[in-house]
Amino acid sequence: MVRAPSLVVVGSVGLDTVETPSARRADQLGGSASYACAAAAFFAPAGMVGVVGADFPARFTAHFRRMGVDLAGLRRAPGKTFRWSGVYERDMNRRRTLSTELNVFADFSPEMPAAYRSAPFLFLANIAPSLQMRVLDQMAAPRFVMADTMDLWIETARPELMRLIRRVDLLTVNESEACHLTGKTSLVAAASELLRRGPRYIIVKKGEHGSLLMGPDGLFLVPAFPLETVRDPTGAGDTFAGALMGRLAAARRVSEKEIRRAMVYGSVVASFGVEEFSLTRLLRLTLAEIEARRDSLSRMCRLP
Amino acid sequence: MVRAPSLVVVGSVGLDTVETPSARRADQLGGSASYACAAAAFFAPAGMVGVVGADFPARFTAHFRRMGVDLAGLRRAPGKTFRWSGVYERDMNRRRTLSTELNVFADFSPEMPAAYRSAPFLFLANIAPSLQMRVLDQMAAPRFVMADTMDLWIETARPELMRLIRRVDLLTVNESEACHLTGKTSLVAAASELLRRGPRYIIVKKGEHGSLLMGPDGLFLVPAFPLETVRDPTGAGDTFAGALMGRLAAARRVSEKEIRRAMVYGSVVASFGVEEFSLTRLLRLTLAEIEARRDSLSRMCRLP
Repeated sequence: MVRAPSLVVVGSVGLDTVETPSARRADQLGGSASYACAAAAFFAPAGMVGVVGADFPARFTAHFRRMGVDLAGLRRAPGKTFRWSGVYERDMNRRRTLSTELNVFADFSPEMPAAYRSAPFLFLANIAPSLQMRVLDQMAAPRFVMADTMDLWIETARPELMRLIRRVDLLTVNESEACHLTGKTSLVAAASELLRRGPRYIIVKKGEHGSLLMGPDGLFLVPAFPLETVRDPTGAGDTFAGALMGRLAAARRVSEKEIRRAMVYGSVVASFGVEEFSLTRLLRLTLAEIEARRDSLSRMCRLP
Repeated sequence: MVRAPSLVVVGSVGLDTVETPSARRADQLGGSASYACAAAAFFAPAGMVGVVGADFPARFTAHFRRMGVDLAGLRRAPGKTFRWSGVYERDMNRRRTLSTELNVFADFSPEMPAAYRSAPFLFLANIAPSLQMRVLDQMAAPRFVMADTMDLWIETARPELMRLIRRVDLLTVNESEACHLTGKTSLVAAASELLRRGPRYIIVKKGEHGSLLMGPDGLFLVPAFPLETVRDPTGAGDTFAGALMGRLAAARRVSEKEIRRAMVYGSVVASFGVEEFSLTRLLRLTLAEIEARRDSLSRMCRLP
């Protein structure tokens, strides 16, 4: 019998080739659903919806299982796994995509396991809006739906994206996406505009500068945990969002206060994630380490 | 009889020509000492040390007086006032300097009024390190000295700057300057390195992303107040630092907690300053508005 996960995550699962100023790693475990599920699983049972190819290494599937990710929704299809490669510049805040190969994602049509359909929490991680919509359509009556997106879909699938946005409770975008999506130049103006498009909450992710929530209770600012060394920022936003949703699913209740609390966990888990390549740091991360860093972050931003 | 100011500020006083995506303003009141003194004066009597030319408009002097800035240390010399011009790009975080004319600052040698020499607080705002040093040398025994600098001096006057840094309590730099000065790429690593060069405290200014204090009690993060409209970011760092020092001078005691509190005021006053060109917004700003926005910022970053 499959235990129903309280959180379902749909997104990409792939093999990333990442180059930073100090190193290059080929075919490491990546993808928005990979980072998000791994982060969420610290807090709540998370079910992954996605697809991998015949070449997807068994050790990566083992990683997911070890972290407590439910793989009933992960299909293995003939063909090659989704691949992405990118380069980070010296300041690590800018990256260039070198290549994206959709491979098995090109004609993926997610079919949700029956046990997933009644999950109360749904995270539509970054992937084509049509796939996000298809998953959302298969859910019975999710209590809280969060969606993420990226510039690519704003450019190539704006109508589908805008339709999707109307149906989600929380939309998370990064700074440039928020401005790109709305035509506004200020982050506050862009977030206000997005709120008028449907979601009750908007989170703008600012990378190393933290994140901002705009909701009925106003603005809330969460700093990123200041790090001496960042090795691989890939997936930081997915890790943030995954931990946030996992924590929210664990809290069971959804309130603005719980969302704020969950964002702090998102920020903390993401700060661990970027300390090493791929999911390496998350694989050996403990809840005690998360709590200790959360306390530390909380002290750093307590205004006297 | 001249009342001794509790805070002395040395820096540039000049005429700025500023171009933003939406407007261009020629020969507006600017300069690091102008912004810093105007911001400090909300909290404590601030004395300005600087020089202007024969062309410096009397209405600008009147602005300073109206804000309670002591001008006993502001010399009027034959010749032209210091001029700077720059352009802000679309995102307002990047600016290009078009021209800098030192004019009367070219051979300025600050002579401090007797009443200034015993001031307990000294802010060496951005100006040539040799001038900052000359002012510091004339002080009796300041209780707390803060210095700011800029890329230009890191490139052209590094030895003087490093000598100065050894003698200050608090050094404030922006992100790129911190990295430029230390050769480090991470902000935390750069701040740690700067702490080894003399100051007890380092503040790294991150513009719209707030600021970071590193001191004996660890890190402290202050966000910038999120604004819908930024009209002119010129002088934001000087305003931040001026308000910080004014507030510290008003508190009389220097402790890390007081510095943290003062940074919050710095962040708040600077957020008002950038809402309009030059010192326009500061000129009609009230303490009640400052306190209200401080409360609001405090609520926005209270972690649940």
